[in-house]
Amino acid sequence: MPPTHATQPFGSAIARSDATSIRIHGLDLCSELIGHVTITDFVALELRGRIPEAGERRLLDAFMVTIAEHGSTPSTIAARLTLLGSPDQWQSAVAAGLLGAGSRFLGSMGDCARLLQDPAVVPQDAAGDRAATVVELAGGPVPGIGHPLHKPDDPRSLRLFALARELGAYGPACATIAAVRELLHERSGTRLPINATGAIAAIGSDLGYPWPTLRGFALVARTVGILGHLAEETRAPMAQDIWDLVEGLPPHA
Amino acid sequence: MPPTHATQPFGSAIARSDATSIRIHGLDLCSELIGHVTITDFVALELRGRIPEAGERRLLDAFMVTIAEHGSTPSTIAARLTLLGSPDQWQSAVAAGLLGAGSRFLGSMGDCARLLQDPAVVPQDAAGDRAATVVELAGGPVPGIGHPLHKPDDPRSLRLFALARELGAYGPACATIAAVRELLHERSGTRLPINATGAIAAIGSDLGYPWPTLRGFALVARTVGILGHLAEETRAPMAQDIWDLVEGLPPHA
Amino acid sequence: MPPTHATQPFGSAIARSDATSIRIHGLDLCSELIGHVTITDFVALELRGRIPEAGERRLLDAFMVTIAEHGSTPSTIAARLTLLGSPDQWQSAVAAGLLGAGSRFLGSMGDCARLLQDPAVVPQDAAGDRAATVVELAGGPVPGIGHPLHKPDDPRSLRLFALARELGAYGPACATIAAVRELLHERSGTRLPINATGAIAAIGSDLGYPWPTLRGFALVARTVGILGHLAEETRAPMAQDIWDLVEGLPPHA
Amino acid sequence: MPPTHATQPFGSAIARSDATSIRIHGLDLCSELIGHVTITDFVALELRGRIPEAGERRLLDAFMVTIAEHGSTPSTIAARLTLLGSPDQWQSAVAAGLLGAGSRFLGSMGDCARLLQDPAVVPQDAAGDRAATVVELAGGPVPGIGHPLHKPDDPRSLRLFALARELGAYGPACATIAAVRELLHERSGTRLPINATGAIAAIGSDLGYPWPTLRGFALVARTVGILGHLAEETRAPMAQDIWDLVEGLPPHA
Repeated sequence: MPPTHATQPFGSAIARSDATSIRIHGLDLCSELIGHVTITDFVALELRGRIPEAGERRLLDAFMVTIAEHGSTPSTIAARLTLLGSPDQWQSAVAAGLLGAGSRFLGSMGDCARLLQDPAVVPQDAAGDRAATVVELAGGPVPGIGHPLHKPDDPRSLRLFALARELGAYGPACATIAAVRELLHERSGTRLPINATGAIAAIGSDLGYPWPTLRGFALVARTVGILGHLAEETRAPMAQDIWDLVEGLPPHA
Repeated sequence: MPPTHATQPFGSAIARSDATSIRIHGLDLCSELIGHVTITDFVALELRGRIPEAGERRLLDAFMVTIAEHGSTPSTIAARLTLLGSPDQWQSAVAAGLLGAGSRFLGSMGDCARLLQDPAVVPQDAAGDRAATVVELAGGPVPGIGHPLHKPDDPRSLRLFALARELGAYGPACATIAAVRELLHERSGTRLPINATGAIAAIGSDLGYPWPTLRGFALVARTVGILGHLAEETRAPMAQDIWDLVEGLPPHA
Repeated sequence: MPPTHATQPFGSAIARSDATSIRIHGLDLCSELIGHVTITDFVALELRGRIPEAGERRLLDAFMVTIAEHGSTPSTIAARLTLLGSPDQWQSAVAAGLLGAGSRFLGSMGDCARLLQDPAVVPQDAAGDRAATVVELAGGPVPGIGHPLHKPDDPRSLRLFALARELGAYGPACATIAAVRELLHERSGTRLPINATGAIAAIGSDLGYPWPTLRGFALVARTVGILGHLAEETRAPMAQDIWDLVEGLPPHA
Repeated sequence: MPPTHATQPFGSAIARSDATSIRIHGLDLCSELIGHVTITDFVALELRGRIPEAGERRLLDAFMVTIAEHGSTPSTIAARLTLLGSPDQWQSAVAAGLLGAGSRFLGSMGDCARLLQDPAVVPQDAAGDRAATVVELAGGPVPGIGHPLHKPDDPRSLRLFALARELGAYGPACATIAAVRELLHERSGTRLPINATGAIAAIGSDLGYPWPTLRGFALVARTVGILGHLAEETRAPMAQDIWDLVEGLPPHA
């Protein structure tokens, strides 16, 4: 016989509801949230417990807009193939797509932010010293630096940093990643860009987001991007042709 | 030996990029999207191919904010347990959570919208006639009607319909679902609410979203909600206690 | 404050363990299972609560061996692409692969067995009458009948039915599906094969497996097949080339 | 316009089929595999390219039988909750369960085998020297050693090693892990068991399985275990009660 528990040891503090009201993170869903905040505000509420200011919201939207869509990727192709096998199960296709958004593609944002937020990277140090610490901690390629196509600058990062300056959010972490890039240039002679995940990691750090939460924005964005491919697959299917091609068959008529 | 293909039969038309620019659905990512549109705009762009007007955007945000968070659900509990087994693999935990967002919990929105958008539901008919057609097509409980806790009205639906009226988006589909509710009341004597998924299905239909695309908003919202629980699990874990309890063990000290 | 529960309402009855012993479905893991039974026996133990006889075990192995491997399919391609994005996360790649094993590819086995086990299909009726009932219940194409490549006979089904006869397991459900095929031939003039899922559904029904449990064998088999492709992907990668091709890039050197 | 590819750069070598025959890893499916080999043989064929000898097959079955079932775990609870949200989607529930079988629960087998197969662990060295190398490489707790419940010996490991000796498969890797345990005992004064994953890692290494392939057996076994819980959930549901309890509601009547 299972033991008796006098009280439950758990319970989420996020939501409370009764017949007439629903409160989420302490705010009334119907009178304070629906119609008043955006889903981006809500992401911040879920990850950080508070509604962001207008400038922060605009940057958070910019983060997600930047990384939502990358065209055909392993993730979106896997999602299309899953929809082919399980028609109408969009949740399964999105799940399959997210599973490929692992260390190789999305990990670099978290890894970069973790380095920038490392206690060894002391804000009081000069940017060049912080950069040297980051490079040493990385012990190899620095996540957030470099891109196969966009050189010498990633246009998305230029845009994101300009926006951060405009909104007063360009801070020590942004200065650090810029100094990392210069340091690597000096040492290697090659001028690599700060890529989009590096820019988001830096600006997100300056906005005060703990590094694990930044992965949350990446996952929302990735979900959005996968949905775009499921919608396209529904109106202009290609999964069957991909399958045929991998099998060595001629494409369907 | 695999056959030769002279040309590829596929290729996504969503994104185009070269060294200096990236275009998504025909818009320049850096100069037209980042900093200019919200992720909600981007969802609409992905699902429908265009940036929404301000009123539509506000309703789309309202949809997602309404359904993002439901406290502890099978979906969020499964996500927490997955994080316990695979620490740091947030994408796996989100995927597991989405997999439980299937027919029982999220299907009703799509099912309701499909009925409201059925060709047999002719806009020129009176709302009462359209409602009778919907009830007949449903052939049983009408998805989008009824709620275990929120009676006789779901406060979220009241809020969403008020917002739709305010923004000029309350149209024939909204009138149909309202008439469905009245018809069921007449027939059964029980007054059931239009629940949140019914309200979103109706307003989304009036905004012109084909029913399959509405599931996209639900999946983005559900992803956001799961992230809230992963963030809470990280700062105030309960998955181990749930496991202990199911196993019949006393909670961890 | 959460309510007090005097006793737990749940608890799995499958496994019991203490410091020195582990019992599963009432059998001692170390002295009665490890080294004594195969994983196929264990699948039967999990799904049906008992270790099968030798003939039944041989048929269960035959089921799984028959459907484990289909070469490149949406499922195995999705698994490879997931491994590309999340290296070393084999569990994520297998999960992605299973998600594509939905209604279109694996559902037909369950659907066919459900028809053969329908209460309206009365064993006392003649095989031809049972077949007529099955065709009527199906109301369209009968799952388990037909194959795009293997015509007029699916060699796997011939082998499985021969094995079932040899082992004394060819019973009323096998006779029903054979009669279904003849009936469809009569009606349409086209001779379609009983495919492998139809054969397994019929033999599994004659072995007494409730139709939902047959999906269990399919999922074990599918897991095995996916693993073969992950192993091949590890030693002879093709996911990157698939990605390049879908993106319209030349293959990697 | 996408570029022209003269030939396809990929193609799985696993399966070949035409209208009358199917070959898998060079063997004829119908005349050499179905009815002749077990699914365990097939796993070995997929992971290693050949059908195992009888003794090896018995050990492989023992591996999978040992780790298939652990009662209620995060993995099986997540699978049950997923089935509650997505009824009948067994593939989704299995996928969710596998996603929790990550580094914390299944990783130790692969990690232990990787250490035992590390090139620095030279077979010609004495077992004690190899053990010292393993402990040094681990640089902390050695995966495969220790268990919260089974002390000082894990009865499953005792059984597996006895079986390995009986079948002539107890080799240098088994001797190494035994010496590791002794070394840790000497150094710490605490006598920890070789757990089941440590035993499988060692015996699997002595059977010549590269460490990544051993994860394949774990994933098949885990799939089998999850299926047992889905079958139990179908006949004796507990997911709704788990949900209620986590939400703080009284159990359903």
